[in-house]
Parts: sequence; structure tokens; C-alpha cells
Amino acid sequence: MTAYDYIHDGQAIYERSFAIIRSEADLARFSDAEADVAIRMIHACGMVEAAQHFVFSEGFVTAARTALQAGAPILCDAEMVARGVTQARLPAKNELICTLRDPRTAEIAARIGNTRSAAAMDLWGECMAGAVIAIGNAPTALFYLLEKLRDGAPKPAAIIGMPVGFVGAAESKDALAENSHGVPYAIVRGRLGGSAMTAAAVNSLARPGL
Amino acid sequence: MTAYDYIHDGQAIYERSFAIIRSEADLARFSDAEADVAIRMIHACGMVEAAQHFVFSEGFVTAARTALQAGAPILCDAEMVARGVTQARLPAKNELICTLRDPRTAEIAARIGNTRSAAAMDLWGECMAGAVIAIGNAPTALFYLLEKLRDGAPKPAAIIGMPVGFVGAAESKDALAENSHGVPYAIVRGRLGGSAMTAAAVNSLARPGL
Repeated sequence: MTAYDYIHDGQAIYERSFAIIRSEADLARFSDAEADVAIRMIHACGMVEAAQHFVFSEGFVTAARTALQAGAPILCDAEMVARGVTQARLPAKNELICTLRDPRTAEIAARIGNTRSAAAMDLWGECMAGAVIAIGNAPTALFYLLEKLRDGAPKPAAIIGMPVGFVGAAESKDALAENSHGVPYAIVRGRLGGSAMTAAAVNSLARPGL
Repeated sequence: MTAYDYIHDGQAIYERSFAIIRSEADLARFSDAEADVAIRMIHACGMVEAAQHFVFSEGFVTAARTALQAGAPILCDAEMVARGVTQARLPAKNELICTLRDPRTAEIAARIGNTRSAAAMDLWGECMAGAVIAIGNAPTALFYLLEKLRDGAPKPAAIIGMPVGFVGAAESKDALAENSHGVPYAIVRGRLGGSAMTAAAVNSLARPGL
């Protein structure tokens, strides 16, 4: 009879995971608050090496935490990002918004000549003001967000810019870091990123500590 | 004025991404059908190096594709996995099932002394017979699945076993590869995995080709 030996307790698994990450990851260049976010992001992707690609702009953690505590909505580019956010951790019953599946998105995409992920943002409207924006999937969404900010869209409180992939992901995050139009941001340089890391960052920012 | 230069067309982005992956990834040890799944999984995580950790058991792709075409349900350990599956690609309006948020799960977890992710599987019942099981988050879910199969649970058609993380993830996937109780499987060895890769595997299996 096969016997399986493993930890059955969720909290114990979390604690052991975070301890392993602390012992293996190089977190020296982060503040304590940034390190907490970084640990959650590493936990989501299973790679301590990913930390070398994390960039938090000056004041990002404070800006995002303050906004969430004040009830800011979280605007997501992908359903998976929204689904990865632990609603019970949110400090003010913050609204989680993803407009990708809105029936108007396809028509907007055709009109603006961009992807549905980008087009979905045109439905955010005034919700963008003071929001926490979480982009974990589509580089086109991050590029289009930058275009909207350049053209005077309402300013969010913070941008989590972590699209993943081989076409435009690295470039879109570089563009955000080069000129975030005054908005504090967090990125993962290069191809890495994704909905799990992005949701992990939101979950970390939602509550101080790990 | 900042100008952003990027590809705006979703299909063109996919094609370029897959071409980059083919040119950079070492896919030589995979069959053509396995390589298609591998390319989608690489696309989801942004790392061509991940391919070295992919293992497809003999007959896995055929078993999973055949089951999906015949209308098999897809049983997921996490909402993010279910949310990452593109329903329009599914060949037979296959049911996507995730019982993690079922109100009975917490009580079952307390009774069996395991995580909610593991406990949620006790609600799958006869749905397991012939299903495609997609585990992209919790090692405890994969361990508990193996215990259920050992103890005579209905046999699924295929198991996508790709939990991510630092505690139990590598071990649970090794255990599946060591004895899958006769069920074809796909795993990502080690710490890598996650809901995006798992959903990408399902999406690939749902339709032949890329």
C-alpha cells in the first residue's frame, strides 16, 4: 500500500514556504515592506530567482496599501487575476473589476484596433481614479494603459504591471518603468510575470505582514 | 509625447510568441502532439527553460484529448485553473468543475484533517470517472487524489498534475510519476507549475494544433 508523507495543515505549509523563501531568496535590496510583497510573489511562481527581476518604484507599497485601505477598487486585465485575489484579505470590501468579458469589449477592440484586453480598459472610465490596477496577462493592456495615461486618463493610485510572455511583455514593463506618468508601480522585468504573481502582489498589499 | 510601438493584433501576437518558443525551446524529446502542449505551457509561464521539467506519460495526450472530445468534465483544484480554461475551445461544452468554494468543503477539511483544496475533492464523487483532472495549485490536492485512487476512487481519464511551490509540490508530482494508479498524466517536475500552466495544458488538449 502506497503511503504518502506530507504536511496536511494549510497554515503550516504557508509558514514553511515563507521560511524556505527567506532562506534562499536574495531580498537584500528590498525594504521590509517590499520584501513581504516579493516573498508572496516568489511563493506564487515557485522560483526564488525571480526576485532579481522585481522592481518596486519609490513609494509603491505605501501608495497601494493606502489606496486599498481607503476602499480603492482593483482593476484587473484578466479574470484569472481577479480570481486569484483573496477577497477575505481585502481591507475594505474593495471592488474587483474585470471588464474583459463585457459584451461591448469586442466592438471597442475592433474600433481602436487593439486586443480585447486593451479594449476592456475603455470601460473602466472614472473608476481608474485612485484605483489599484493589476495587469497580469496582456502586454497590450499595459501599453494601452500607458497610452491612456499619456492622453490624460484619471490617475490610478498604483500600477501592478506584470504581464507575462514573449511578445511585448518585457517592452511594456520597461516602458512603464521609464515613464509611469507619475503613478507608483511594481513590475517584473523581462518575460516573467502572470496572473498568479500579480494576484499574489495584490494579496500581499491587502494586508501588512505575510 | 511618448509613442509606444507594439503589435496590436492578438492572433499575430500568438503566432509570433509560438515562433519564438519553437526557436528557443528544446522540444526534441517530445512527440509532435506533446510539443504543442509544451509550447502552450511555456507560453503561459514565459520561460523556455521550463520545458526540461515537463513529463508526459505514455499515451497522456491521446487519453486526455479523447476524453475531452467525448465530453469529459474537467475537475480543477483551484478557481484560477477553471478561469484560465478557454471555454470556447472546449470540444464538447465540457463541464468545468471546482468545488473549493462549496460550503461543505470547510467541514470536510476539518473531518479529514487536510486542506480545503484536498477536501474539495471529496465532493467530486462519480464525476471522477473518465474526467480530466487539472491540479495547478495545491500539492495537498495532488497527494489526496493519489490517496483516493489508491483507495479505489473512480479512475479519471488523465491527470494534469502541476501544483507549484516550495512545500510538497515537487514531492507530490514525483509521487504521481512513481505510481499514477494506471492513469496517464502530465507533470512539471520540481517547484514550477501553477494555474496558468495547468490551464494552458487544458487549452492545448482541448483542440489539436496550437
